[in-house]
Amino acid sequence: MVLDCPAWVNVVPVTAAGNVVLIRQYRHGIREVTLEIPGGVVEAGEAPAAAAARELGEETGYAAQAIRPLARVLPNPAVQNNYLYLYVAEGCRRSGPPRPDRFEDIEVLERPLAEISALIRDGHIAHSMVITAFALLGLTIAPAPR
Amino acid sequence: MVLDCPAWVNVVPVTAAGNVVLIRQYRHGIREVTLEIPGGVVEAGEAPAAAAARELGEETGYAAQAIRPLARVLPNPAVQNNYLYLYVAEGCRRSGPPRPDRFEDIEVLERPLAEISALIRDGHIAHSMVITAFALLGLTIAPAPR
Repeated sequence: MVLDCPAWVNVVPVTAAGNVVLIRQYRHGIREVTLEIPGGVVEAGEAPAAAAARELGEETGYAAQAIRPLARVLPNPAVQNNYLYLYVAEGCRRSGPPRPDRFEDIEVLERPLAEISALIRDGHIAHSMVITAFALLGLTIAPAPR
Repeated sequence: MVLDCPAWVNVVPVTAAGNVVLIRQYRHGIREVTLEIPGGVVEAGEAPAAAAARELGEETGYAAQAIRPLARVLPNPAVQNNYLYLYVAEGCRRSGPPRPDRFEDIEVLERPLAEISALIRDGHIAHSMVITAFALLGLTIAPAPR
Protein backbone atom coordinates (compact mmCIF):
# COMPACT_ATOMS: atom_id res chain seq x y z
CA MET A 1 0.00 0.00 0.00
CA VAL A 2 1.36 3.43 -0.94
CA LEU A 3 -0.46 6.61 0.10
CA ASP A 4 -0.13 9.26 -2.59
CA CYS A 5 0.40 12.46 -0.59
CA PRO A 6 1.26 16.04 -1.57
CA ALA A 7 4.37 17.65 -0.10
CA TRP A 8 4.06 19.00 3.42
CA VAL A 9 5.78 21.93 5.15
CA ASN A 10 6.49 22.76 8.79
CA VAL A 11 7.99 26.05 9.94
CA VAL A 12 9.58 27.06 13.26
CA PRO A 13 8.62 30.73 13.69
CA VAL A 14 11.05 32.67 15.89
CA THR A 15 10.54 36.27 17.01
CA ALA A 16 13.26 38.90 17.41
CA ALA A 17 12.97 38.35 21.18
CA GLY A 18 13.80 34.63 20.78
CA ASN A 19 10.30 33.26 21.27
CA VAL A 20 8.82 30.44 19.23
CA VAL A 21 5.28 30.97 17.94
CA LEU A 22 3.35 27.80 18.73
CA ILE A 23 -0.18 26.72 17.94
CA ARG A 24 -2.48 24.65 20.07
CA GLN A 25 -5.11 22.81 18.08
CA TYR A 26 -7.47 19.88 18.28
CA ARG A 27 -6.28 16.94 16.22
CA HIS A 28 -8.92 14.57 14.97
CA GLY A 29 -6.55 11.63 14.50
CA ILE A 30 -5.53 11.42 18.13
CA ARG A 31 -8.65 13.20 19.49
CA GLU A 32 -6.51 15.44 21.63
CA VAL A 33 -5.24 18.99 21.72
CA THR A 34 -1.62 19.17 20.56
CA LEU A 35 1.09 21.83 20.71
CA GLU A 36 2.68 22.30 17.30
CA ILE A 37 4.28 24.71 14.89
CA PRO A 38 2.54 26.00 11.76
CA GLY A 39 2.48 23.72 8.77
CA GLY A 40 0.35 22.09 6.17
CA VAL A 41 0.06 20.98 2.60
CA VAL A 42 1.98 22.52 -0.30
CA GLU A 43 -0.63 23.50 -2.85
CA ALA A 44 -0.37 22.61 -6.53
CA GLY A 45 2.15 24.90 -8.22
CA GLU A 46 3.27 26.42 -4.93
CA ALA A 47 6.94 26.50 -3.84
CA PRO A 48 7.48 24.86 -0.43
CA ALA A 49 8.98 28.05 1.06
CA ALA A 50 5.91 30.00 -0.10
CA ALA A 51 3.67 27.39 1.52
CA ALA A 52 5.60 27.80 4.77
CA ALA A 53 5.08 31.59 4.71
CA ARG A 54 1.42 31.14 3.83
CA GLU A 55 0.74 28.60 6.60
CA LEU A 56 2.58 30.84 9.08
CA GLY A 57 0.31 33.76 8.19
CA GLU A 58 -2.91 31.77 8.06
CA GLU A 59 -2.39 29.82 11.28
CA THR A 60 -0.75 32.49 13.45
CA GLY A 61 -1.20 35.93 11.87
CA TYR A 62 2.59 36.40 12.04
CA ALA A 63 4.89 37.37 9.18
CA ALA A 64 8.63 36.66 8.95
CA GLN A 65 11.58 38.76 7.85
CA ALA A 66 13.21 35.66 6.36
CA ILE A 67 12.24 32.04 5.72
CA ARG A 68 15.27 29.76 5.71
CA PRO A 69 15.28 26.03 4.77
CA LEU A 70 16.36 23.54 7.44
CA ALA A 71 15.96 20.19 5.70
CA ARG A 72 13.84 17.95 3.55
CA VAL A 73 12.77 14.80 5.38
CA LEU A 74 10.47 11.82 4.93
CA PRO A 75 7.28 11.74 7.03
CA ASN A 76 6.77 8.00 6.55
CA PRO A 77 8.66 6.39 3.67
CA ALA A 78 7.20 2.96 4.40
CA VAL A 79 3.80 3.90 3.03
CA GLN A 80 3.84 7.55 1.93
CA ASN A 81 5.53 8.95 -1.15
CA ASN A 82 5.85 12.56 -0.01
CA TYR A 83 8.48 14.85 1.47
CA LEU A 84 8.20 17.19 4.42
CA TYR A 85 10.07 20.50 3.97
CA LEU A 86 11.23 22.11 7.21
CA TYR A 87 11.89 25.84 7.59
CA VAL A 88 12.78 28.39 10.22
CA ALA A 89 11.01 31.74 9.97
CA GLU A 90 13.20 34.46 11.45
CA GLY A 91 12.25 37.88 12.77
CA CYS A 92 8.58 36.96 13.11
CA ARG A 93 6.10 39.54 14.29
CA ARG A 94 2.35 39.66 14.44
CA SER A 95 1.00 41.31 11.31
CA GLY A 96 -2.73 40.67 11.72
CA PRO A 97 -5.25 38.16 12.96
CA PRO A 98 -4.85 34.45 12.19
CA ARG A 99 -6.89 33.31 9.21
CA PRO A 100 -7.55 29.64 9.93
CA ASP A 101 -9.71 27.68 7.53
CA ARG A 102 -13.10 26.58 8.76
CA PHE A 103 -11.85 23.19 9.90
CA GLU A 104 -9.17 24.68 12.15
CA ASP A 105 -9.63 25.88 15.74
CA ILE A 106 -6.25 27.27 16.70
CA GLU A 107 -4.82 29.08 19.73
CA VAL A 108 -1.56 30.99 19.14
CA LEU A 109 1.05 31.34 21.88
CA GLU A 110 4.73 32.31 22.25
CA ARG A 111 7.24 30.36 24.30
CA PRO A 112 10.99 31.06 24.70
CA LEU A 113 13.14 28.87 22.47
CA ALA A 114 15.02 27.87 25.62
CA GLU A 115 11.84 26.20 26.97
CA ILE A 116 11.19 24.02 23.92
CA SER A 117 13.50 21.21 25.00
CA ALA A 118 11.54 20.80 28.24
CA LEU A 119 8.20 20.97 26.41
CA ILE A 120 9.37 18.07 24.23
CA ARG A 121 10.92 16.13 27.11
CA ASP A 122 7.73 16.46 29.15
CA GLY A 123 5.51 15.34 26.28
CA HIS A 124 3.74 18.67 25.73
CA ILE A 125 5.19 18.81 22.24
CA ALA A 126 4.79 15.23 20.98
CA HIS A 127 4.26 15.50 17.21
CA SER A 128 7.16 13.64 15.61
CA MET A 129 7.44 16.00 12.63
CA VAL A 130 7.49 19.03 14.93
CA ILE A 131 10.23 17.47 17.07
CA THR A 132 12.14 16.77 13.85
CA ALA A 133 11.95 20.44 12.87
CA PHE A 134 13.35 21.55 16.24
CA ALA A 135 16.09 18.90 15.99
CA LEU A 136 17.12 20.16 12.54
CA LEU A 137 17.19 23.69 13.96
CA GLY A 138 19.98 22.42 16.21
CA LEU A 139 17.98 22.15 19.43
CA THR A 140 19.30 19.67 21.99
CA ILE A 141 16.65 17.79 23.94
CA ALA A 142 17.91 16.98 27.42
CA PRO A 143 17.96 13.19 27.92
CA ALA A 144 15.32 11.62 30.14
CA PRO A 145 16.47 10.96 33.72
CA ARG A 146 17.65 7.36 34.17
CA MET B 1 -10.44 11.09 7.74
CA VAL B 2 -8.83 9.15 10.59
CA LEU B 3 -6.49 6.24 9.90
CA ASP B 4 -6.88 3.56 12.55
CA CYS B 5 -3.28 2.40 13.16
CA PRO B 6 -1.67 0.04 15.68
CA ALA B 7 1.08 1.37 17.94
CA TRP B 8 4.54 1.60 16.40
CA VAL B 9 8.00 1.26 17.94
CA ASN B 10 11.45 2.50 16.94
CA VAL B 11 14.63 1.57 18.75
CA VAL B 12 18.13 3.10 18.66
CA PRO B 13 20.49 0.11 19.11
CA VAL B 14 23.87 1.08 20.59
CA THR B 15 26.79 -1.31 21.00
CA ALA B 16 29.26 -1.35 23.89
CA ALA B 17 31.76 0.32 21.52
CA GLY B 18 29.38 3.25 20.95
CA ASN B 19 28.20 2.29 17.50
CA VAL B 20 24.61 2.57 16.32
CA VAL B 21 23.19 -0.44 14.47
CA LEU B 22 21.46 0.91 11.35
CA ILE B 23 19.46 -0.78 8.64
CA ARG B 24 19.35 0.10 4.99
CA GLN B 25 16.14 -0.97 3.29
CA TYR B 26 14.02 -0.30 0.26
CA ARG B 27 10.91 1.69 1.13
CA HIS B 28 7.96 1.26 -1.18
CA GLY B 29 6.32 4.57 -0.25
CA ILE B 30 9.20 6.72 -1.41
CA ARG B 31 10.65 4.09 -3.83
CA GLU B 32 14.11 4.67 -2.42
CA VAL B 33 16.60 2.99 -0.13
CA THR B 34 16.58 4.61 3.31
CA LEU B 35 18.89 4.46 6.33
CA GLU B 36 16.90 3.80 9.47
CA ILE B 37 16.85 2.15 12.87
CA PRO B 38 14.85 -1.00 13.63
CA GLY B 39 11.16 -0.61 14.26
CA GLY B 40 7.73 -1.74 13.32
CA VAL B 41 4.26 -2.52 14.51
CA VAL B 42 3.38 -3.55 18.06
CA GLU B 43 1.47 -6.79 17.74
CA ALA B 44 -1.83 -7.42 19.51
CA GLY B 45 -1.23 -8.14 23.18
CA GLU B 46 2.47 -7.25 22.93
CA ALA B 47 4.12 -4.68 25.21
CA PRO B 48 5.86 -1.90 23.24
CA ALA B 49 9.25 -2.64 24.85
CA ALA B 50 8.90 -6.30 23.85
CA ALA B 51 8.07 -5.21 20.31
CA ALA B 52 11.24 -3.08 20.26
CA ALA B 53 13.37 -6.06 21.34
CA ARG B 54 11.64 -8.31 18.81
CA GLU B 55 12.10 -5.88 15.90
CA LEU B 56 15.74 -5.38 16.89
CA GLY B 57 16.34 -9.12 16.72
CA GLU B 58 14.36 -9.74 13.56
CA GLU B 59 15.75 -6.84 11.56
CA THR B 60 19.39 -6.86 12.72
CA GLY B 61 20.14 -10.14 14.51
CA TYR B 62 21.38 -8.12 17.51
CA ALA B 63 20.25 -8.51 21.12
CA ALA B 64 20.44 -5.83 23.84
CA GLN B 65 21.50 -5.94 27.46
CA ALA B 66 18.81 -3.37 28.30
CA ILE B 67 15.93 -1.67 26.48
CA ARG B 68 15.18 1.76 27.94
CA PRO B 69 12.21 4.00 27.00
CA LEU B 70 12.98 7.42 25.50
CA ALA B 71 9.53 8.85 24.82
CA ARG B 72 6.07 8.30 23.43
CA VAL B 73 5.34 10.55 20.46
CA LEU B 74 2.70 11.06 17.78
CA PRO B 75 3.60 10.00 14.22
CA ASN B 76 0.85 12.11 12.65
CA PRO B 77 -1.94 13.28 14.97
CA ALA B 78 -3.75 15.08 12.16
CA VAL B 79 -4.97 11.83 10.61
CA GLN B 80 -3.58 8.89 12.61
CA ASN B 81 -4.75 7.75 16.04
CA ASN B 82 -1.61 5.86 17.07
CA TYR B 83 1.44 6.42 19.20
CA LEU B 84 5.08 5.75 18.37
CA TYR B 85 7.13 4.40 21.29
CA LEU B 86 10.84 5.22 21.15
CA TYR B 87 13.53 3.16 22.88
CA VAL B 88 17.28 2.94 23.20
CA ALA B 89 18.76 -0.57 23.25
CA GLU B 90 22.00 -0.56 25.21
CA GLY B 91 24.88 -3.03 25.12
CA CYS B 92 23.81 -4.47 21.77
CA ARG B 93 25.74 -7.32 20.25
CA ARG B 94 25.16 -9.61 17.33
CA SER B 95 23.45 -12.79 18.54
CA GLY B 96 22.58 -14.43 15.23
CA PRO B 97 21.50 -13.74 11.68
CA PRO B 98 18.74 -11.20 10.97
CA ARG B 99 15.34 -12.79 10.50
CA PRO B 100 13.54 -10.32 8.22
CA ASP B 101 10.04 -11.18 7.06
CA ARG B 102 9.59 -12.01 3.40
CA PHE B 103 8.68 -8.44 2.50
CA GLU B 104 11.88 -7.00 3.95
CA ASP B 105 15.26 -6.74 2.21
CA ILE B 106 17.56 -5.32 4.84
CA GLU B 107 21.28 -4.55 5.07
CA VAL B 108 22.67 -4.14 8.60
CA LEU B 109 25.55 -1.75 9.34
CA GLU B 110 27.20 -0.06 12.32
CA ARG B 111 28.10 3.62 12.48
CA PRO B 112 29.63 5.54 15.40
CA LEU B 113 27.05 7.52 17.36
CA ALA B 114 29.26 10.58 16.81
CA GLU B 115 28.61 10.32 13.03
CA ILE B 116 24.81 10.27 13.27
CA SER B 117 24.42 14.06 13.41
CA ALA B 118 26.26 14.41 10.09
CA LEU B 119 24.25 11.56 8.52
CA ILE B 120 21.06 13.44 9.43
CA ARG B 121 22.43 16.84 8.40
CA ASP B 122 23.53 15.48 5.02
CA GLY B 123 20.17 13.81 4.37
CA HIS B 124 21.40 10.20 4.56
CA ILE B 125 19.10 9.64 7.52
CA ALA B 126 15.89 11.40 6.49
CA HIS B 127 13.05 9.44 8.13
CA SER B 128 11.30 11.89 10.46
CA MET B 129 10.50 9.27 13.10
CA VAL B 130 14.12 8.07 13.13
CA ILE B 131 15.40 11.63 13.53
CA THR B 132 12.90 12.06 16.38
CA ALA B 133 14.33 9.00 18.14
CA PHE B 134 17.88 10.36 17.91
CA ALA B 135 16.66 13.77 19.14
CA LEU B 136 15.00 12.18 22.17
CA LEU B 137 18.23 10.31 22.85
CA GLY B 138 19.78 13.76 23.35
CA LEU B 139 21.68 13.98 20.07
CA THR B 140 22.42 17.49 18.80
CA ILE B 141 22.22 17.95 15.05
CA ALA B 142 24.65 20.59 13.91
CA PRO B 143 22.75 23.45 12.23
CA ALA B 144 22.96 23.80 8.47
CA PRO B 145 25.53 26.33 7.25
CA ARG B 146 23.92 29.72 6.56
